[in-house]
Amino acid sequence: MKNSFGQSVSVTLFGESHGSAVGAVLDGLAPGIEVDCGFIAAQLTKRRPAGKISTQRVEQDRFEILSGVFNGKTTGTPIAISIPNENVRSGDYSEVSRLARPGHADYTAHLKYHGFEDFRGGGHFSGRLTAALVAAGAIALSALKGKGIYVGTHIKACAGIYDRELSDIEADIAAANALDFAVLDGEIAAAMREEIEKAAADGDSVGGILETAVAGFPPGVGEPFFDSVESVLSHALFSIPAIKGVQFGDGFALSEMRGSEANDAFEMSEGRVITKTNRAGGINGGITNGMPIVFSCAVKPTPSIFKTQKTVDYLKNENAELSLKGRHDPAIIHRARVVVDSLTAIVLCDMLAQRFGTDYLMPGR
Amino acid sequence: MKNSFGQSVSVTLFGESHGSAVGAVLDGLAPGIEVDCGFIAAQLTKRRPAGKISTQRVEQDRFEILSGVFNGKTTGTPIAISIPNENVRSGDYSEVSRLARPGHADYTAHLKYHGFEDFRGGGHFSGRLTAALVAAGAIALSALKGKGIYVGTHIKACAGIYDRELSDIEADIAAANALDFAVLDGEIAAAMREEIEKAAADGDSVGGILETAVAGFPPGVGEPFFDSVESVLSHALFSIPAIKGVQFGDGFALSEMRGSEANDAFEMSEGRVITKTNRAGGINGGITNGMPIVFSCAVKPTPSIFKTQKTVDYLKNENAELSLKGRHDPAIIHRARVVVDSLTAIVLCDMLAQRFGTDYLMPGR
Amino acid sequence: MKNSFGQSVSVTLFGESHGSAVGAVLDGLAPGIEVDCGFIAAQLTKRRPAGKISTQRVEQDRFEILSGVFNGKTTGTPIAISIPNENVRSGDYSEVSRLARPGHADYTAHLKYHGFEDFRGGGHFSGRLTAALVAAGAIALSALKGKGIYVGTHIKACAGIYDRELSDIEADIAAANALDFAVLDGEIAAAMREEIEKAAADGDSVGGILETAVAGFPPGVGEPFFDSVESVLSHALFSIPAIKGVQFGDGFALSEMRGSEANDAFEMSEGRVITKTNRAGGINGGITNGMPIVFSCAVKPTPSIFKTQKTVDYLKNENAELSLKGRHDPAIIHRARVVVDSLTAIVLCDMLAQRFGTDYLMPGR
Amino acid sequence: MKNSFGQSVSVTLFGESHGSAVGAVLDGLAPGIEVDCGFIAAQLTKRRPAGKISTQRVEQDRFEILSGVFNGKTTGTPIAISIPNENVRSGDYSEVSRLARPGHADYTAHLKYHGFEDFRGGGHFSGRLTAALVAAGAIALSALKGKGIYVGTHIKACAGIYDRELSDIEADIAAANALDFAVLDGEIAAAMREEIEKAAADGDSVGGILETAVAGFPPGVGEPFFDSVESVLSHALFSIPAIKGVQFGDGFALSEMRGSEANDAFEMSEGRVITKTNRAGGINGGITNGMPIVFSCAVKPTPSIFKTQKTVDYLKNENAELSLKGRHDPAIIHRARVVVDSLTAIVLCDMLAQRFGTDYLMPGR
Repeated sequence: MKNSFGQSVSVTLFGESHGSAVGAVLDGLAPGIEVDCGFIAAQLTKRRPAGKISTQRVEQDRFEILSGVFNGKTTGTPIAISIPNENVRSGDYSEVSRLARPGHADYTAHLKYHGFEDFRGGGHFSGRLTAALVAAGAIALSALKGKGIYVGTHIKACAGIYDRELSDIEADIAAANALDFAVLDGEIAAAMREEIEKAAADGDSVGGILETAVAGFPPGVGEPFFDSVESVLSHALFSIPAIKGVQFGDGFALSEMRGSEANDAFEMSEGRVITKTNRAGGINGGITNGMPIVFSCAVKPTPSIFKTQKTVDYLKNENAELSLKGRHDPAIIHRARVVVDSLTAIVLCDMLAQRFGTDYLMPGR
Repeated sequence: MKNSFGQSVSVTLFGESHGSAVGAVLDGLAPGIEVDCGFIAAQLTKRRPAGKISTQRVEQDRFEILSGVFNGKTTGTPIAISIPNENVRSGDYSEVSRLARPGHADYTAHLKYHGFEDFRGGGHFSGRLTAALVAAGAIALSALKGKGIYVGTHIKACAGIYDRELSDIEADIAAANALDFAVLDGEIAAAMREEIEKAAADGDSVGGILETAVAGFPPGVGEPFFDSVESVLSHALFSIPAIKGVQFGDGFALSEMRGSEANDAFEMSEGRVITKTNRAGGINGGITNGMPIVFSCAVKPTPSIFKTQKTVDYLKNENAELSLKGRHDPAIIHRARVVVDSLTAIVLCDMLAQRFGTDYLMPGR
Repeated sequence: MKNSFGQSVSVTLFGESHGSAVGAVLDGLAPGIEVDCGFIAAQLTKRRPAGKISTQRVEQDRFEILSGVFNGKTTGTPIAISIPNENVRSGDYSEVSRLARPGHADYTAHLKYHGFEDFRGGGHFSGRLTAALVAAGAIALSALKGKGIYVGTHIKACAGIYDRELSDIEADIAAANALDFAVLDGEIAAAMREEIEKAAADGDSVGGILETAVAGFPPGVGEPFFDSVESVLSHALFSIPAIKGVQFGDGFALSEMRGSEANDAFEMSEGRVITKTNRAGGINGGITNGMPIVFSCAVKPTPSIFKTQKTVDYLKNENAELSLKGRHDPAIIHRARVVVDSLTAIVLCDMLAQRFGTDYLMPGR
Repeated sequence: MKNSFGQSVSVTLFGESHGSAVGAVLDGLAPGIEVDCGFIAAQLTKRRPAGKISTQRVEQDRFEILSGVFNGKTTGTPIAISIPNENVRSGDYSEVSRLARPGHADYTAHLKYHGFEDFRGGGHFSGRLTAALVAAGAIALSALKGKGIYVGTHIKACAGIYDRELSDIEADIAAANALDFAVLDGEIAAAMREEIEKAAADGDSVGGILETAVAGFPPGVGEPFFDSVESVLSHALFSIPAIKGVQFGDGFALSEMRGSEANDAFEMSEGRVITKTNRAGGINGGITNGMPIVFSCAVKPTPSIFKTQKTVDYLKNENAELSLKGRHDPAIIHRARVVVDSLTAIVLCDMLAQRFGTDYLMPGR
């Protein structure tokens, strides 16, 4: 399936940037999980653009839960969430209606949908759909929290500037989640913001790396071969527009290490098996080992820039120049981190339900 | 599903390192594709260890096709391939039967299977299973070749030494496929081999990066969101033991670029839309744009090393030291590249069959 | 997945009887298919209760298309449809809130969802969800019509009274589709209505058999073994509440025939291979043979009756008596037929897209 | 997927009637389940033809377990089973190589596979593949037995003669399982055999109805809508060649009842909720209610008969007459019942693993 993902717990997305709504159906989550609309709204706020480093299109993200919640708790049946598109200015996009925006899906969507695609604002390929993921993911995050499982993401790098490394995972997750701009070191955060503003001033954009950690996740979860934890998480993560790389633990850096350095030595600690280092990101042979799950995602620079770009008119099949107007983000990495957390949470809920049963996440189990 | 992957074209794996056989069932491939047993054997040879830079356990990989081939061609129904394990010396592993080998799945398999797992030689988590993938993938590669689609992988980096960059994709694919040790620059190849031998002499191991290119793949393939080409390929790739990172196009390097540099400008070339650069790896918005598909995989150093390692006895729950004996690879990256090609080919066949129908890969269509 | 079905073309359902809306997400349908809101409304009208033989709860079924339609045509991306519940009188159900209604899912939903289920009016297990299927199915029916494929269902039996047999399939499909109460013989229709009214007068209900025919469907579609046409269609059909039996062609009657009678002889007719009889319902070995696909569904009597019934209070775990009030159908078979048509159409679109590619149903292909 | 079924526990089939082997890969079954090769062999014997009422082609069904079993117990990883075809006389089929056998998949396989299909003996569409299901199913049956869940099937009807009804479900299951020819009433069994022999003498064949019961299955299992217990079981059951109808509980007979008769009244019995009758076959709203699961399958008469039949030559596209030689069954219903039990067991294991987790079926849990 295309816009659906997951087995025991699954999510289905719908919507277009300039259509009437975007939304998600979250199915299979255990019953009895409290649905905190304030938390959903707060998560949507993290994704919503704000200030000089974001687009000026600001949606209020007034979500509506259409099903699956009764007396403030999940019922166990599908939770449908709809988020109307309110601040749509389609006129801004008319000029580019036949020009392929480089780095966007305009041209490939045209190849696939033969001209019937809703091209306005990227249509179904817009980052706007991630709002629906964030709303659904907020409920998944609450479900995990009920089991002592915490997910958090910091901006590991932006425009080539690197945040400090993760140290105390649980504290760093809490710290990242408390921040609007999720950089653990405040001075580095300021430097990054400055770079984003510089890029914006140049009509350009920047990218970065998001690093995510999951604390409290049980060991022994994941399936051999094709449903390794890495496989399933990367499948979901690469769906997020702009993500072009995913690595677990030390990832690409492992390629330059020797085995004696890359291997995480096991040891006993207070009666539990732990590893001294966590270069594997908490996963051996595709199965969780009880250490924090850690992974990073490469986020490419926002493709919408104000600099004039060479491109083609894909209806006339001729070369053209593109000068974007409208409202665009000079960076989306600070907005993307809550998307990563949300999708990660949904995938982890699925893994837990598959491994331990569909009631596992129910409070009190 | 765990050991199955794919929708229209799927593969199912089975086997253990020291069991009677490993194997694969390749289902849904179009009928009429020639099955060239010589090519299958040649591909298996590429995966088979050889010389000083590989383990001394050498299997002949005498494969047997149990079904799905009639008069030398695929029938369209499941192709089952069994590869007996012949050179099994289980005794070598008895000593480690209760010690978790760092970097291996021994401990996590134990957590998941509660002691019933076949722990000999890594059991089901052994790289040995990839032999079955290679046999099945050889048929998928033939099917793609019939459509003018070529897949090839070179060792982009090993032990921190980098091969030259890809230039003429089709020629480089052909060159890589003709090599036993798939490094495009012969001098660099020699330097890499030297590093592997050094690591071997130290009782240690090295990792690297594999870069894969696909030429001739049609545009407009891939599905929105969860079945983006990146999502589906990464799902498969992360199943391969030792792969801890996957990136498309320039991947993590995109995180340090500005949008104006990262965006691939479109232009007309001989009546076709192409991009001047290919930083996106041939994929925009999850859908192929007609440029070569390019991606890289981080391969961690082989976890089996001869250096003494700290670990735990996971039955007694106490600290221990591990000194591996037996036969182990100081590097597997040169053997892994054919595994990447094979799995990539199977996934691409699935994408094509989903997009254009189950007869698409049949010769003469 | 639970509330999702299909691979290339899939549908996801959500909603509860007394929640704010029911809805469906139809994903993967080819682009360019005209979306005729009048036809959707007409199909919903066929499902809507009317007159003495139906419940007095009448919803206007004002559907809203939230995504996937642009300029009146499908875009190829998910079509989300929401149908608000307007005429909700939850008070009617308060009395039965702890009593298991026999034949309903109250008790089993409680076992599965541990009391968190929305029990009002059957919640997610209500036939109300089929309105969403009908809306989505209307678009699928239009897609099929564009390829000359027609689906229709008549009430083969109701309360033990049987309609005439199908004779000219295409004409009978058209005739059934033109009827509100889909019985091909008008006198038999009147007799059935009388039986339904009698049952209603007795505070009781009746069931029946629906027979569905599909004309114009291409041969060679369906997959071996687990994705036989029968397997996939029955999977979908048994999801419809009240369906307790499914048979293809002559189905259970074949069990009393000899092979010489049951086998459909092949013969040439105007250069095409046809079968003289169609006892197999157009399917041999799970694959369509070009004859009309014919199947029947057993519809149990509506479980909501006004007669006092013995049951249990499943919270107190004690015996109880149940006297239903509210608004209930003495028969649903006349409303269910459009649900069968709708779901059948979605499944057939999926089969065609899997077999011939995702563009197959696009007009002009 | 085509030849794979199931999510947490899945089975993949391969093979052709006259190829080198048929086989199955059973994946995801819990670890620690004893694998009793004697029981597997005994189950295969039930499926194997014997005596005057079966084909004279008798395979020894020497199965080989290639993986997934260690120290006599399941490991939790894929169990591959191969059953060589030994008694292959392909010559017998050469005459029919271009004539479509009525009731068989010859013609439809040709439409789908364009002449590349292995047509010998029905190829992949042969009932021979069910031997592999029986071997895999035997392990699933053992797993269920470990949880006190028993599956059994009797020949409810053959050639229009009906067995007595099920009374004491557990005893009847045990009785059916102890019989070679699974008819509960010995006199009726003799009458049925006589009818089969008569049909054989006439060069003809007969069909029948199989009724299956499952005792001890937990309540609260099954998923709403598309993964109702009926949906998932029927999907699997309709894969079995020759099955053309499936009904749960009273099935088609419900269509003639009134609601007051069809509804199963709930009542308390020894502190448990039971139903007085079991017309719903243990399933309400797609979820098990704790009563025995009961369903019936219509088995069409064996299509291979010795009477001369009209057909077409589908290569020449002309009318023809077919006189089958070779070895054929005048009835397969007595052989099919163990296939139904086997596939049912696999599906139930999957449902339990999805509902209660992948360790649920492990002994001692």
